[in-house]
Amino acid sequence: MTDRNRLIIFDTTLRDGEQSPGASMNLPEKLEIARALQELGVDVIEAGFPIASPGDFEAVQAVARQVEGVTICGLARCNADDIDRAWEALRDAAQPRIHVFLATSAIHREFKLKMAKEEIVRRAVQGVQRAKQYCEDVEFSPEDAARTELDFLAEVVEKAIEAGATTVNIPDTVGYAVPEQYAAAIRHLKQNVRGIDNVVISVHCHNDLGLAVANSLTALKEGARQVECTINGIGERAGNCALEEVVMAVKTRGDYFGIQSTINTKRLCPSSRLVAHVTGLLVQRNKAIVGQNAFAHEAGIHQDGMLKERRTYEIMQPEDVGLTKTELVLGKHSGRHALREKVRELGYHLDDAQLQRVFEQFKALADRKKQIYDADIEALAETQIHDGPAIWTLESFHTSAGTGTLPMAAVCLAHVDGRKVEDAACGDGPVDAVFKTVERITGISPELRDYQVRSVSVGEDAQGEARVEVEHEGRVQRGQAVSTDVIEASALAFLQAINRLAMRRQQRMNPQTEAVTVS
Amino acid sequence: MTDRNRLIIFDTTLRDGEQSPGASMNLPEKLEIARALQELGVDVIEAGFPIASPGDFEAVQAVARQVEGVTICGLARCNADDIDRAWEALRDAAQPRIHVFLATSAIHREFKLKMAKEEIVRRAVQGVQRAKQYCEDVEFSPEDAARTELDFLAEVVEKAIEAGATTVNIPDTVGYAVPEQYAAAIRHLKQNVRGIDNVVISVHCHNDLGLAVANSLTALKEGARQVECTINGIGERAGNCALEEVVMAVKTRGDYFGIQSTINTKRLCPSSRLVAHVTGLLVQRNKAIVGQNAFAHEAGIHQDGMLKERRTYEIMQPEDVGLTKTELVLGKHSGRHALREKVRELGYHLDDAQLQRVFEQFKALADRKKQIYDADIEALAETQIHDGPAIWTLESFHTSAGTGTLPMAAVCLAHVDGRKVEDAACGDGPVDAVFKTVERITGISPELRDYQVRSVSVGEDAQGEARVEVEHEGRVQRGQAVSTDVIEASALAFLQAINRLAMRRQQRMNPQTEAVTVS
Repeated sequence: MTDRNRLIIFDTTLRDGEQSPGASMNLPEKLEIARALQELGVDVIEAGFPIASPGDFEAVQAVARQVEGVTICGLARCNADDIDRAWEALRDAAQPRIHVFLATSAIHREFKLKMAKEEIVRRAVQGVQRAKQYCEDVEFSPEDAARTELDFLAEVVEKAIEAGATTVNIPDTVGYAVPEQYAAAIRHLKQNVRGIDNVVISVHCHNDLGLAVANSLTALKEGARQVECTINGIGERAGNCALEEVVMAVKTRGDYFGIQSTINTKRLCPSSRLVAHVTGLLVQRNKAIVGQNAFAHEAGIHQDGMLKERRTYEIMQPEDVGLTKTELVLGKHSGRHALREKVRELGYHLDDAQLQRVFEQFKALADRKKQIYDADIEALAETQIHDGPAIWTLESFHTSAGTGTLPMAAVCLAHVDGRKVEDAACGDGPVDAVFKTVERITGISPELRDYQVRSVSVGEDAQGEARVEVEHEGRVQRGQAVSTDVIEASALAFLQAINRLAMRRQQRMNPQTEAVTVS
Repeated sequence: MTDRNRLIIFDTTLRDGEQSPGASMNLPEKLEIARALQELGVDVIEAGFPIASPGDFEAVQAVARQVEGVTICGLARCNADDIDRAWEALRDAAQPRIHVFLATSAIHREFKLKMAKEEIVRRAVQGVQRAKQYCEDVEFSPEDAARTELDFLAEVVEKAIEAGATTVNIPDTVGYAVPEQYAAAIRHLKQNVRGIDNVVISVHCHNDLGLAVANSLTALKEGARQVECTINGIGERAGNCALEEVVMAVKTRGDYFGIQSTINTKRLCPSSRLVAHVTGLLVQRNKAIVGQNAFAHEAGIHQDGMLKERRTYEIMQPEDVGLTKTELVLGKHSGRHALREKVRELGYHLDDAQLQRVFEQFKALADRKKQIYDADIEALAETQIHDGPAIWTLESFHTSAGTGTLPMAAVCLAHVDGRKVEDAACGDGPVDAVFKTVERITGISPELRDYQVRSVSVGEDAQGEARVEVEHEGRVQRGQAVSTDVIEASALAFLQAINRLAMRRQQRMNPQTEAVTVS
């Protein structure tokens, strides 16, 4: 494959994806996703917006230091503080990239930035130049480019290239573009910007009208060669261009696009499941490529056609995207080695101590459950990539509930300092009673914003995965846990969220400065 | 608005949407959705495929008889039996349409139909002519049109028009098309098919590569004027073009498309929630237009911009799609009239008896729960549109579970014949114990395929909505119920599924013939 036909996949799951309401991730979670992206074969990982918060800075720095063989990118506005801070986070990366942005559309100039065109150009040039002092690989984004006057857009882009930008990204920040128009904008730049043939044209589309993938693909036909995207299409509002869709469209319609990415498509489904687990943003059943139904044929005529010739109704094969049919994997007698292999295959990177804990849980589960599925193993592995040691752990609990009786729970929690505390409470139901008891013991009473349980595999002995989202003193925290007992899973998930709140209360050293983020 | 600028919305939620694995609906559910579609303002409702099964026939007939002011369409293959049966179901509609289809692509001709081109043309013409004997409004679809040779496609379409088709639909049955190519196919037909200007060109796109909406929109620029779509984009595999996305794209980008639909966009969110509830196919948070996050701005820079000027980051307003901010609706002292209004506003059509039951449940809920939200009312209304009288009802239950104890449940069920049966069982957890006890009492032991619980509103006193999907003797059934007690909700949902299986066992008169369905 020549450079000309090479599609660069720029993943921003950790930056724009993390901006999805409810999807904030902690450091171990971000590292796990970064490693999965590296295995998936993406070219660039945008790991965060270093100046936005200490957490963002640490994440970019950790990814820059620990994830190899891929370009690591950090975001910055066009000002010295942002760019310096981005470089501080990125400097240990083998292949660092600084991504600077500044809005260019009339509405952003007038209402948000209150700057004239000349000022925008000046700032953009200064930003690129400052980034270039640190790093050869500099990307420039005119925010809200899709609503910017074409002539002015061409002017800004040309100046950014002169100043040293090696990639110019054309964001449709608000998801307003339609394919033909967006393609025309790329064509206009191709024809009118001096030096454009020496840089990579990138696209960054949002999905507000359901057109992010189509806009990105149409731009590729006009010569764009980098697509900014996220796993499962997560991101601000309706999200970003879905990585798995753009990759499979280019692959399936290679006859039309004539370009190739280096994505290992068999890692698409595992990556999708990992991101869904970590962010709590589940994928709908009819989601293209990675949804549960994406390859399911229901109608009789379709099934009939499939039996006669697969291609009558199937343009991709489930194996191509890593959807394996034989989900049944391990049994009671499977050993540590088989488990280690399976965990890796599912896309998790656990150290020996974590793997040992998963192995113990797996053995306990195999005693209770006849068949262990991939999803069971994933659920166990996932609990390992969250936090450090917990302040409170569940020692034991008991619940009683039913018609005409007051639902009640008794809970015993162990504190990290050694003491054990027992208490009991009533509730609307047994889960509510457990939550109320945990609140009594820990002294933390958050508001429950969301609560979900789902079976992670099939059968009545399937494990239930509980997820809670709570809000306390303006902060949202999530918790997640699995058990064959729904009440136990709920108790553990709630306790995880409480522990995160308690940790935060203990630390209280880094005041929140999450006032910035973008496109 | 002139005819030329009028976009016809053809909804196939009840036909192609119902082909989503796991989404089959019963008659009351289909009628409820049909009424919601009529209120939403769609032009055509494809209500089913009458010959596919007795259930499909009854649904098309009921919708044809009861839903007014909209064209009711039934699907048929190009053969006499199918078409006669379709007409039988449709004949009482004020505005009936027969939709006949026949595959035209080389791969379908060769492997599925084993017919030469001449035979395809002959059958298509015969099909349209037979439908035309019954009904003026006839639609013809060359299945897998997007993979059909353009010249042959033009030939078939021209012959179908000569035979009397008033709408010609160009399906991308397998979701293979890309926008530019698909537009070129429409353009080719516009330029080469005699009589095409006298009929409506329709598009029917699938979302396997994430391009269903984009393909549909691009075709509109070439003169197509009917879009076939489904609420939430449900349908075979990755689903169909999402109605809400295509409607809002055309509305938001009116400057570009220059066409208008008659959809009341404020009904989009209620319709989406109804279909999600009924089918169990939940919408992901980052789904465009109707997802929970579609209008949520997370990033600081975005929030800052929104405060300065909404349009910096918002191209549509949540109110435009019926997403209301003030969700808090009714309290303990609200009366029957307020409840009736609210139920209607949420898109449900309940009779007096159903409304009375919802009112009683609402009062009971208001005793337990401080704040009643829209979602609480929806959950109560939804339980009314399922079945007739149940064979088994839950009299009472008790569960006990916790660390180191064997989870157990005692359940008392009442049979419709008057007897009451009590029993108890152990399980992996209290929910499993309840399910096992219900199985003991009823003598029906299905396999549990899926189990989910989610809070329908916020707060610890939120109701939990439980959903189960079970499989028994090759049939899949679902159950759904709400309660502030997770165990009770689970028991009721499981019992609903069991009742449906028991009903089916009692009836056993209509053998299944669900061997057909399409595109």
